[in-house]
Amino acid sequence: MSVAVEEKEMNDAVEGGEKKLSKKELNKLAKAAKIAEIKAQKAAQNQGQTNENDGEDVSIGMYGNYGMIQSADKKDIMFSQLNKISANIHGQEIWVRGRVHAIRTKGKTCFLVLRQRFYTAQVMLFVGDKISKQMLKFVSNIPKESIVDIQGRVEKVEAQIESCTQKDAELHAIQVFIVSSSEQRLPLQIEDASRRADNAEGLAAVNLDTRLDNRVLDLRTTTNQGIFSLQAGVCKLFRDTLRERGFVEIHTPKIISAASEGGANVFEVSYFKGSAYLAQSPQLYKQMAIAGDFEKVFTIGAVFRAEDSNTHRHMTEFVGLDLEMAFNFHYHEVLETIGAVLINVFKGLQRDYADEIAAVGRQYPAEPFEFCEPALVLKYPDAVKLLREDGVEIGDEEDLSTPVEKQLGRIVKKKYNTDFFILDKFPLAVRPFYTMPDPHDPRYSNSYDMFMRGEEILSGAQRIHDAEFLVERAKHHNIELEKIQAYIDSFKYGCPPHAGGGIVEQVVW
Amino acid sequence: MSVAVEEKEMNDAVEGGEKKLSKKELNKLAKAAKIAEIKAQKAAQNQGQTNENDGEDVSIGMYGNYGMIQSADKKDIMFSQLNKISANIHGQEIWVRGRVHAIRTKGKTCFLVLRQRFYTAQVMLFVGDKISKQMLKFVSNIPKESIVDIQGRVEKVEAQIESCTQKDAELHAIQVFIVSSSEQRLPLQIEDASRRADNAEGLAAVNLDTRLDNRVLDLRTTTNQGIFSLQAGVCKLFRDTLRERGFVEIHTPKIISAASEGGANVFEVSYFKGSAYLAQSPQLYKQMAIAGDFEKVFTIGAVFRAEDSNTHRHMTEFVGLDLEMAFNFHYHEVLETIGAVLINVFKGLQRDYADEIAAVGRQYPAEPFEFCEPALVLKYPDAVKLLREDGVEIGDEEDLSTPVEKQLGRIVKKKYNTDFFILDKFPLAVRPFYTMPDPHDPRYSNSYDMFMRGEEILSGAQRIHDAEFLVERAKHHNIELEKIQAYIDSFKYGCPPHAGGGIVEQVVW
Repeated sequence: MSVAVEEKEMNDAVEGGEKKLSKKELNKLAKAAKIAEIKAQKAAQNQGQTNENDGEDVSIGMYGNYGMIQSADKKDIMFSQLNKISANIHGQEIWVRGRVHAIRTKGKTCFLVLRQRFYTAQVMLFVGDKISKQMLKFVSNIPKESIVDIQGRVEKVEAQIESCTQKDAELHAIQVFIVSSSEQRLPLQIEDASRRADNAEGLAAVNLDTRLDNRVLDLRTTTNQGIFSLQAGVCKLFRDTLRERGFVEIHTPKIISAASEGGANVFEVSYFKGSAYLAQSPQLYKQMAIAGDFEKVFTIGAVFRAEDSNTHRHMTEFVGLDLEMAFNFHYHEVLETIGAVLINVFKGLQRDYADEIAAVGRQYPAEPFEFCEPALVLKYPDAVKLLREDGVEIGDEEDLSTPVEKQLGRIVKKKYNTDFFILDKFPLAVRPFYTMPDPHDPRYSNSYDMFMRGEEILSGAQRIHDAEFLVERAKHHNIELEKIQAYIDSFKYGCPPHAGGGIVEQVVW
Repeated sequence: MSVAVEEKEMNDAVEGGEKKLSKKELNKLAKAAKIAEIKAQKAAQNQGQTNENDGEDVSIGMYGNYGMIQSADKKDIMFSQLNKISANIHGQEIWVRGRVHAIRTKGKTCFLVLRQRFYTAQVMLFVGDKISKQMLKFVSNIPKESIVDIQGRVEKVEAQIESCTQKDAELHAIQVFIVSSSEQRLPLQIEDASRRADNAEGLAAVNLDTRLDNRVLDLRTTTNQGIFSLQAGVCKLFRDTLRERGFVEIHTPKIISAASEGGANVFEVSYFKGSAYLAQSPQLYKQMAIAGDFEKVFTIGAVFRAEDSNTHRHMTEFVGLDLEMAFNFHYHEVLETIGAVLINVFKGLQRDYADEIAAVGRQYPAEPFEFCEPALVLKYPDAVKLLREDGVEIGDEEDLSTPVEKQLGRIVKKKYNTDFFILDKFPLAVRPFYTMPDPHDPRYSNSYDMFMRGEEILSGAQRIHDAEFLVERAKHHNIELEKIQAYIDSFKYGCPPHAGGGIVEQVVW
């Protein structure tokens, strides 16, 4: 296979991806890319060495390496965002700062793909009056992932540039400077990390260990840029929605003196000459804030669980979104509020984060998320009935296992066409001691879980706000009262009835 | 002193406080209040016992105790907020839910002060056609801090009610129900907890230990309601301002595998069969997010320091507001951004939280906070000069002690009339290893602190974004390189120049 053919194929891959490539062709491309990479590394080793045959350098001062930017002076350069490059600004000269996503030289032309978070644009260098051979060589040798400043003229293109997000224009370089150089050898390729491990084309992918060992590189994929933006979006929408409804944000202690919620799965901390524990939830503090007259509170913060299980539902540390709310007569005032808040989050994500959802969807495809408004509320006994009709053997007061939760999710989706629902009235026996029993049937409780695609995302309940009754229930659960004395005492001086819930938003760091 | 006189004085205290009372009179009042309280306690013990002499109860069904609200049914009562009670709605019948802040009976009349967070309103009961003696007795015996539902008619008043926030109207009760009863004996009085320990009148106050032992009651003072609202406000304004400027919110790990920043003052956690540490700052993670292409990030979360000192500047756990930002050529792009963000927070607090600031000011008086816009930026050598002119002996490369910081705050306030300023160009020797040295003078660094009223509230700098130079500086600081290898590696694959800072917002739980 000639180098010309290799380059032709790479060219197709960079400039246009419209025709479908076979698995064999794609493998060839991957091999060609590897060869090109090794060539580039070798070339880079020669970087800076001038070649006598190149003649006088007409580009002196138009390219180079800034060296480490130490804030020696303030430069008067206005940078454009990469996603502003389009046919609309054809002919304009702009400066952009971005990462070298891909680079390839063919004779007197250099193709460079510049990346900025979600966006990519094509940059071209042509040796000529203004661009010297030396400059082309210098640019050709810039390691991938380096950060560069490029001044260039925006030129609209005839054929769409399929491989970039900026499709109808490219940049013709005038000046190129290295801001921060990458090592030549990358422990993973951003393109590979952007693919599913089980991609149908059999292309290279990156396994989880390599990703985590090189997390900073892995974070640069559009998938992770999207996931982090979405996580920030969930917090923003959650907070904004609650604040509109009069909730106050609080921060609760993380280092606590006693293992407050039962004592299992708690991390111990050496605390000077004694020891302390990491809070497993802001639960008790949220409730104390209600007894302290805050009426409606929420908190977003770290939660710690010493669970030594490697599943996606067990993490030793995660970010919890918690809320607690006084109500007047019925905990459904709170259940309905939480349902409406979550629906507002879903709508906000679909409205304001469509690009991020699409970015994540490219690596992890999913059906669009469906929900009804107001949220579907299903009673526990009715869910048990649906499950039994679907062949599940389950007792009236038995908790749902993870597979049964998933099955229930599928049944509900089929019957009600929603990926989100609320399961109300859990059996009292499967809930914590501070859960208010159902007033009409002592086997059940005023508690609920909320589900997305068959996975529990929120657990909540009306809490017992009467100190005497709380003691009775704690004794029933064999909880050492002295460990929770401060908590019990909180309810001795008048406390409104209240309910709340907690959402797990996993840290994907 | 007759009971009638006592009651007259209490009456004055409850209904109007316009005339200045002497210290002696105030002491008398405090004593009278104590006596009244004991009486009320005794009376409460008799609560529920009907007296044959009271005759037929015309108010049956119009008062009582709901019992524990267990969500047995949904009632159709619309509640008004307490602060809506005013002469404007004279004659309207409304329901309110609030706490019994004060209560006193005089013959056939009961005066009750109802409280809701920042607001208080006067409620009157008169024995007559609709209100029986039994009902009056029942209401008289409701323990302070109990939560009650009151239906009443709004009546405008002639003389302002000085002791309540709702001054031009009161509520004439029709129905009264207990929602949640308080114990009779309160470990502290809300009024006492709302006073400074060193109040000029020599009135009862509550010491810090008692406050902390009864934090739920202490949280109910308008001071603490205000402090918590302001804390929530700072976070809201910080986030909103940064988001407008394109910052992404991140959450950073709290349990970390190595003591990342030097190793001193770090808490150790038992982590299954090994051990781990609690993060002392999100510093390294913020920077890794910058190397991971997030460009501008912020995070609000728990920070842990194992500092065994009892000062208001040393806490083992607090909430940090941190940000980090890539810049183009000069770290002043970031310094100016942070300055503008903080000024936006100050302006937002003054604009949207005036009531809360006033509430806190009643217990902790302070001069209004002054600042100039843009923020005053002072160079370290110039500050040293100002201090020397003011008689302080300080070396060129010496750090500022806490008293010297305060002195500098006073000098700056006098000279520039601002309570907020930025001190730029700290000596390199007093900053962490990852701080970028000044490009022109190696004794200084591209680092800054920000001060409010002479106390450092933010510390920040340009960070070294070059892996090789970072290693050099870490070695210079005798840091074990293997402990920070992942951090150093973050900068090997291209990283933009960046700077940031961290603010301490103390948890006042």
